Amino acid sequence: MNVEEKIARVIADIGPLHEDAMTKAADRLDRLTKPQGSLGRLEQLAVQLAGIRGESLPRFPRKAAVVMAGDHGVCEEGVSAYPAEVTPQMVLNMLGGGAAINVLARQAGADVFCVDVGISGDVRHPDLIERKVRRGTANMCAGPAMTREEALRSLAVGMEVAGLLAGRGVTLVAAGEMGIGNTTPSAAIAAVLAGVPVETVVGRGTGLDDERLAVKREAVRRAIAVNRPDSDDPVDVLAKVGGLEIAALAGLMLGAAARRIPVVIDGFISSAAALAAVRLCPAVLSYLIASHLSEERGHAVVLDALGLAPPIRLDMRLGEGSGAVLGFHLVEAAARLIGEMATFDSAGVSRRRED
Amino acid sequence: MNVEEKIARVIADIGPLHEDAMTKAADRLDRLTKPQGSLGRLEQLAVQLAGIRGESLPRFPRKAAVVMAGDHGVCEEGVSAYPAEVTPQMVLNMLGGGAAINVLARQAGADVFCVDVGISGDVRHPDLIERKVRRGTANMCAGPAMTREEALRSLAVGMEVAGLLAGRGVTLVAAGEMGIGNTTPSAAIAAVLAGVPVETVVGRGTGLDDERLAVKREAVRRAIAVNRPDSDDPVDVLAKVGGLEIAALAGLMLGAAARRIPVVIDGFISSAAALAAVRLCPAVLSYLIASHLSEERGHAVVLDALGLAPPIRLDMRLGEGSGAVLGFHLVEAAARLIGEMATFDSAGVSRRRED
Repeated sequence: MNVEEKIARVIADIGPLHEDAMTKAADRLDRLTKPQGSLGRLEQLAVQLAGIRGESLPRFPRKAAVVMAGDHGVCEEGVSAYPAEVTPQMVLNMLGGGAAINVLARQAGADVFCVDVGISGDVRHPDLIERKVRRGTANMCAGPAMTREEALRSLAVGMEVAGLLAGRGVTLVAAGEMGIGNTTPSAAIAAVLAGVPVETVVGRGTGLDDERLAVKREAVRRAIAVNRPDSDDPVDVLAKVGGLEIAALAGLMLGAAARRIPVVIDGFISSAAALAAVRLCPAVLSYLIASHLSEERGHAVVLDALGLAPPIRLDMRLGEGSGAVLGFHLVEAAARLIGEMATFDSAGVSRRRED
Repeated sequence: MNVEEKIARVIADIGPLHEDAMTKAADRLDRLTKPQGSLGRLEQLAVQLAGIRGESLPRFPRKAAVVMAGDHGVCEEGVSAYPAEVTPQMVLNMLGGGAAINVLARQAGADVFCVDVGISGDVRHPDLIERKVRRGTANMCAGPAMTREEALRSLAVGMEVAGLLAGRGVTLVAAGEMGIGNTTPSAAIAAVLAGVPVETVVGRGTGLDDERLAVKREAVRRAIAVNRPDSDDPVDVLAKVGGLEIAALAGLMLGAAARRIPVVIDGFISSAAALAAVRLCPAVLSYLIASHLSEERGHAVVLDALGLAPPIRLDMRLGEGSGAVLGFHLVEAAARLIGEMATFDSAGVSRRRED
């Protein structure tokens, strides 16, 4: 079976949500001791989770934050405030437990999994999942970031990681990344797949000034002009103007959905990957949960294109899956509320006058 | 010492935030392995928490959700979708652990404290904190909801509860409430103290239809017209168009601030209480933390008047402190990030090019 067949098989496994579990969850929510609908979007989330897991009272004892890491040839153009060497340094920091994602994952009771999909340098650590497809992408301003085969292999890495997590009993995943320069390909993907002007999706990343922001905007424009990615072919877009870790994130989302594991998406890069995943398989959308609205320009545009509304507004712009792991708390809250609250009958509480 | 003197003494104890701890916290945040400012408002929150606690690395091992309970004479006007008997029923449900606030507090590792400030009926439970000032307010459409003395005593109850929590080692408090009909006095308080038209702050509460919403709007207008509360005198406003549990919440916030305990405010009612507290003592604002934006009309207006931006958007409208306790997670995240993340030097990560 070649990589394309493997991917097609995973996508074919992504089914609709369980209607029966959703109906039971919705019925139970209306019997809990609270005004109907008063838990707002936590109620919709509880129903979605029930539909994904196929059980009206879903629980999430094992959680994982996945960090897909890769480097970007487009950094040559001066599109990032940080040098590319920071990618391996930060991955080592994550493996050592000192990054923001580690702190937030510990708080959430989640494990962190770092995957080398395409770091330029060599990173060695017993806990690193080594699946390097190539040493960073090529500079997309001069030609395709990678070949179609490499994009497919990156997607397959994400799907494989989803299988690995499922094998360990993980039932909730955060989709994070690390890759200096990766808001630039994300902007290109967003512009092409959402069909919006480049300037609406190019932001300051980790902290560009006005001058460098203009350079970045121009780099995205050139990458699209040079490569002419086909907006109807998400793999073509990921290959020509994407990133190895971005394609892997899309694969992770598809692989998780195929195993009925909900995926909490993070900021701009993770959401751009989600948009690619949804274009590859629209059914994956029901398995995705928005977390925070990043300060990065373009995140709101991508979430709009996905039709997702992020519940957390903290003006974060860190990546790593940090916002997604914060979102775990809301997933857990929704699951606990439907599972643990008393009903009107059990608690002897009167219903509303009209009932 | 009479009640007015007691209150004045507590208010006199509310000091400014510790500048030194805030400076140290801000310095440390800039040395952590992340782009400067990339944790967004979690960084501002970490600095605020440091300033409140007077330590650059604040921790919150003991947390409490307080539910102030009271009834409302204005329910006679038909302003609520639920009968008044639900107040004691829900308080018993909370004492039994079956309400939403219990589930969310368990998730947050917080204890729930229910206080009877003014329930109409009799509630008996070993864990109930009985501080009944009177059996519900009078109908504010016909005259003052309570006397000035009763409003002061309710404020003092809140301050006393803050002291009780401090004595138990609590260092983080959620300000919640239970009281059928209490969005109506909250709207009156908000209209008077924020100086906005009644229609901008009267919402559907637990679920009014259009007809009843008009009745509620008219009740708030009449209550203000009949009582003419003095917008420069928050105690007058709380007494004439307020509620026993609302005044107690304002007292809780003031009492907590006097003991350097941050208070996470909840939805519309809790925020109306915060507005009263801030008008009594502007310095209390630095001790308040916004959590969610409620679906209840008027909540955004009150938060604007306070100058607070809520990080959580879930369209909840439950009260009880449910949104505030969800907000504990973000407080905890801010504290853990500044306390546990590695620095650039300790992790060997390169800084940005310009540095």
